[in-house]
Amino acid sequence: MELFYTLPENVTGQSIQLDTFESKHLVTTLRKKAGDTVYVTDGCGTLFTTILQTVHPSARLEITHKKQHPAPDPRIGLGIGYIRPNRLDFILEKGTELGVNDFYLIRSENANYMSTNKNRFEKIVRQALKQSLKMYKPNVYFSGSLSEYIKQTVEYELRFAATGPEAPAVLPSFKSAYANQQSILVTIGPEGGFSKRETELLENDAFLCVSLGDTRLRSETAALTAVAAVQLFTDYLKETSIGTG
Amino acid sequence: MELFYTLPENVTGQSIQLDTFESKHLVTTLRKKAGDTVYVTDGCGTLFTTILQTVHPSARLEITHKKQHPAPDPRIGLGIGYIRPNRLDFILEKGTELGVNDFYLIRSENANYMSTNKNRFEKIVRQALKQSLKMYKPNVYFSGSLSEYIKQTVEYELRFAATGPEAPAVLPSFKSAYANQQSILVTIGPEGGFSKRETELLENDAFLCVSLGDTRLRSETAALTAVAAVQLFTDYLKETSIGTG
Repeated sequence: MELFYTLPENVTGQSIQLDTFESKHLVTTLRKKAGDTVYVTDGCGTLFTTILQTVHPSARLEITHKKQHPAPDPRIGLGIGYIRPNRLDFILEKGTELGVNDFYLIRSENANYMSTNKNRFEKIVRQALKQSLKMYKPNVYFSGSLSEYIKQTVEYELRFAATGPEAPAVLPSFKSAYANQQSILVTIGPEGGFSKRETELLENDAFLCVSLGDTRLRSETAALTAVAAVQLFTDYLKETSIGTG
Repeated sequence: MELFYTLPENVTGQSIQLDTFESKHLVTTLRKKAGDTVYVTDGCGTLFTTILQTVHPSARLEITHKKQHPAPDPRIGLGIGYIRPNRLDFILEKGTELGVNDFYLIRSENANYMSTNKNRFEKIVRQALKQSLKMYKPNVYFSGSLSEYIKQTVEYELRFAATGPEAPAVLPSFKSAYANQQSILVTIGPEGGFSKRETELLENDAFLCVSLGDTRLRSETAALTAVAAVQLFTDYLKETSIGTG
């Protein structure tokens, strides 16, 4: 199945107008023709089954069926100190694939890079969304400092930060803290990690400071390890509690 | 700390002769001089503290201290169907960082790519070893078919294969099967997954067939998710059994 993306505002009644980028992908790359079935998501949980009507100047689709997918449970946020652009792109791509709903790019003290090129990040996230057949498009937020990040994420019910090998191991901490929270945030430092002052800020603001193991991981590897762990372990704890409860 | 790599056979008594590649890194890139301290591993668990003696024609080091690191427990193997070269490189790099000890590159039925360029793989693994300060260098093996892979890995005490979303979830299966095994193998298909015949082969050969979740993951994302899960969850189960036992 090929999935296409539309901005929600381009869905009008029974009709969808794809933007230029998606139209080109549909018509020029995949050579779809009027009458073909096309699957489209609005990135807000809806999967539209449509029929391609016209291809010029951009693709117009008629909706034949729509299905609302349940919201992600838990909602997963990932805060990451700025790292080299190609490694950051990689986190956005793989994070989307693994089901991250909110990315926060943090200008923390040891972050040596910085970019707020929203268009570029949006493009990467869209591509990953389509590739991995996700119906919820992640948001990308910018945090000018760690303090700002802490404020921006205050509604997350459970907030973690990977602060280094001297902190307690992530899964036992997770198990103790988990009580069916519906939003979970993980926080990874840039190369060089968080400063001492930042680690204290995190601790003071009720972030659970944890370790991902003894091994030295690059930021992007740590980020994906943490997200994968949250995904798999949440499922595990739900299943276990059903088993014993 | 910067870590260098030497072939074990280049360690003679109290002296180490670095190869051309490592010498260049040490002398040209990092501008180390005679008398400087240099850390070297043989990839077999030994960390040598040395003093740089001469830099021409290649670096000669004198060992002042050596420390043997314990063997990885559990030993982790990763079997992966061939995927695009850049994505395979990525698995070798990130897998090394996460602590994989044996890579098996499998020419399974849906694998559309193939390479046995041992030198290239060796170079990637070495770089990742140095970067992540690992003392055990992973092996890279080639498997001409899934059957060959099954035979090659028979000594692994616990063998998993991610066969798709219809299989049981990985962590509950892992918990049931885990009994302090000292070697664990995870197996990931190429793009397109394993064929029906291959899945049957795995099941018949006592591989635990599991799912990494409902989401569609690319092979390299699935591979790293599986390895991270094994690492973190093994630690968790060990810790839990100490807690309750």
